[in-house]
Amino acid sequence: MTPENPTSRFATLPDTSEREATDLFHREEVQLALRNRGMPLEIMRYPVTPSGMHYLVIHFDIPDVNIDQWKLQVGGLVSQPLSLSLDDIKKRPARTMAVTMECAGNGRALLNPRVFSQPWFNEGIGTAEWTGTPLKGILEEAGLTDGAVNIVFSGADQGIQGEVLQVYQRSLNIAESMREEMMLVYEMNGQPLQPQHGYPLRLLVPGWYGMASVKWLDRIEAVEDQFQGYQMAKAYRYTQVREEPGEPVTLIRVRALMIPPGIPDTMSRVRWLTAGQQSLTGRAWAGRLGVSRVEVSVDDGSTWSEATLGEQVSTFAWREWSFVWNAVRGWHTLSVRATDTEENVQPIDQFWNAQGMGNNMAQRVRVLVE
Amino acid sequence: MTPENPTSRFATLPDTSEREATDLFHREEVQLALRNRGMPLEIMRYPVTPSGMHYLVIHFDIPDVNIDQWKLQVGGLVSQPLSLSLDDIKKRPARTMAVTMECAGNGRALLNPRVFSQPWFNEGIGTAEWTGTPLKGILEEAGLTDGAVNIVFSGADQGIQGEVLQVYQRSLNIAESMREEMMLVYEMNGQPLQPQHGYPLRLLVPGWYGMASVKWLDRIEAVEDQFQGYQMAKAYRYTQVREEPGEPVTLIRVRALMIPPGIPDTMSRVRWLTAGQQSLTGRAWAGRLGVSRVEVSVDDGSTWSEATLGEQVSTFAWREWSFVWNAVRGWHTLSVRATDTEENVQPIDQFWNAQGMGNNMAQRVRVLVE
Repeated sequence: MTPENPTSRFATLPDTSEREATDLFHREEVQLALRNRGMPLEIMRYPVTPSGMHYLVIHFDIPDVNIDQWKLQVGGLVSQPLSLSLDDIKKRPARTMAVTMECAGNGRALLNPRVFSQPWFNEGIGTAEWTGTPLKGILEEAGLTDGAVNIVFSGADQGIQGEVLQVYQRSLNIAESMREEMMLVYEMNGQPLQPQHGYPLRLLVPGWYGMASVKWLDRIEAVEDQFQGYQMAKAYRYTQVREEPGEPVTLIRVRALMIPPGIPDTMSRVRWLTAGQQSLTGRAWAGRLGVSRVEVSVDDGSTWSEATLGEQVSTFAWREWSFVWNAVRGWHTLSVRATDTEENVQPIDQFWNAQGMGNNMAQRVRVLVE
Repeated sequence: MTPENPTSRFATLPDTSEREATDLFHREEVQLALRNRGMPLEIMRYPVTPSGMHYLVIHFDIPDVNIDQWKLQVGGLVSQPLSLSLDDIKKRPARTMAVTMECAGNGRALLNPRVFSQPWFNEGIGTAEWTGTPLKGILEEAGLTDGAVNIVFSGADQGIQGEVLQVYQRSLNIAESMREEMMLVYEMNGQPLQPQHGYPLRLLVPGWYGMASVKWLDRIEAVEDQFQGYQMAKAYRYTQVREEPGEPVTLIRVRALMIPPGIPDTMSRVRWLTAGQQSLTGRAWAGRLGVSRVEVSVDDGSTWSEATLGEQVSTFAWREWSFVWNAVRGWHTLSVRATDTEENVQPIDQFWNAQGMGNNMAQRVRVLVE
């Protein structure tokens, strides 16, 4: 069972001058890849991602929160400003919900021409069971006044981005903020939030890309205008050139991923497997929508076959899919794509935009069958 | 408090063709950086690294272990082969120990010329409280016979590396294996091992680089020869050219790291801080040895000042250090270096070798004070 050397081309990588620019990455991007964290795709075998394997983006530094002094401030255009300790929040009605979260930049490193930022291939994902209290109850207690049109959520983390010194801030309109599933969460997989996931409190915005779920949340403010903070007006936009305002990045687009089958080569991550029946499995999700269909291709997208759909873990979490492949000897490129309940199909070609957001092009997995 | 634009050069990164090869990385390396996980350096504020932030290397895939069928097999040159369930192992004498673990490749991405593999800058570290049972007791119960000279530890994880299909295997000689601190661990920070950390059982080899602490351990075998497996004879060697046998990589070399002070720029990770007294802190460790001295430079290594040493977390874990810097306006390169109890001093220049192992050159942190 010795493979016919699928890896010899990786024994030494070519000189950087001999490689295509799309295969080269900057030092700054690698620094980000090592601070942020991806979910190894084989971990999709678990319906809920084990602790420490959920994807992670940390825009600035992980703040050092002193829980004895920490309060959540709720203010702005409200009739009753609130100042709540973590214990106050934990005494409120609690709910636990499994949610699939994905980075808006997932798929960015697959773009051509390349876009410089956190270089995700497909691993910027994870599903956790979050416990907290509905945001709606907090807003109702504070009592939004008539002029309020947006809610601004601020974190304790501070940094420089796009030449602007800022704390991390995002906003939602009132209708979104009052949806039943929006939560303030303090537990993840039955444990207190870890520092890197937003301890002590995080906004959870199911169905939206992860940038909406503000970590280290310590301030909620009702305002009368559209909020024009950096993370709303500059980052997280769909644009063709960086200078354009473009459209805001919001809900998670449909995507399926496959657990790469067989045995990996360490450096290239190319897979090696034996001929015969192979079970291909993975997960698919579509943000606020459901997944209606998953298809698998074993010939690099030329033909597609329907996969079997399994249970959905929860309304806002992924569902399993499976497909039996009769693998024949040779090199193959496997692929998978999903369709959501509004008939949006994952594209085979890239969804290119200047910030590398929402690129849900179908995953490709290179395998050698022997 | 608007910084004078320390980040403008990162607004758009230059074309790859305009950059030095040492600033460019291959797609395969970025894939590894996203599967493996670094510890953000600000997390050194905690004596024990919170769960999910410890560094992580996964050579192959994370195996799917069925605990109902799992046994640890102890065999080879022993008088009494053993087959132990996880419950059997948990019933044995237990011990909890804080240990600083570091990847042998930590510092690899700082080398010039570059070495292609997992591209760590300085974040391949972590300190955990591990709980398990001493290896010595298991070996004594099995009863090593006279011919035994090495103990081979095998994991359940399988992959292709260096064109060899293998399970992950490492060996230790008898004297090392019988040291009091060697353990078989099943808990990390008071919780059952997570899949990515070796569930259900991991060898813990305090003082050695992380490759010795075999994850997903399911077989221990006493053998009469030097073990020549890939991870011993080919990987984890200090060599000047890959083809040479070189010397084995063993104990952790002395290193100190600094929590980057001030506020980060998101993309470049350059730091911005205000003039005046700044407290610099971090951790230092030296594997099996102690740390006798930590020095800080605020002028890119031209002059050095002694830092104050804090408590050592445990015999095999890091100790804190601190230093008060009177920061003046301008750009500065901060650096820190440690000396161990055998007077080995961290080098300012790189420790280059063909596999990028044990490069403990002093960290450099670029800051703008305003």
